[in-house]
Amino acid sequence: MSTTATWTVTGMTCGHCVNAVTEEVSQVPGVTDVEVDLATGGLTVSSEGPVDDGAVRAAVEEAGYEVSGR
Amino acid sequence: MSTTATWTVTGMTCGHCVNAVTEEVSQVPGVTDVEVDLATGGLTVSSEGPVDDGAVRAAVEEAGYEVSGR
Repeated sequence: MSTTATWTVTGMTCGHCVNAVTEEVSQVPGVTDVEVDLATGGLTVSSEGPVDDGAVRAAVEEAGYEVSGR
Repeated sequence: MSTTATWTVTGMTCGHCVNAVTEEVSQVPGVTDVEVDLATGGLTVSSEGPVDDGAVRAAVEEAGYEVSGR
């Protein structure tokens, strides 16, 4: 069953940033789709079953940005 | 003999943008070094002999940004 969860990311300023976050979060186990809204910082992650919150946050940080909320 | 010339680039918002401009301008024939200042938009190009102004501007545009002055 597909699950969708959202986080808010701060620090993204351009399309390159969106790509960096999308690429890192796409590598989290179980993730099937990642949508990032540059204007709002919204990060929407679709996955097969619940995705690991810590893994998503770690991926965002790996990309060079911060999760400010969920 | 080494020559240095400067341009001002608008639209860069982050380190990814700086990298994109640096990579494109580095490919202009004769260019030996490229320095980009994100805060000011300053683009400093070192080259063997005078570098082609149009080629630098085209490279910046190829990267997705604009030259606002020289």
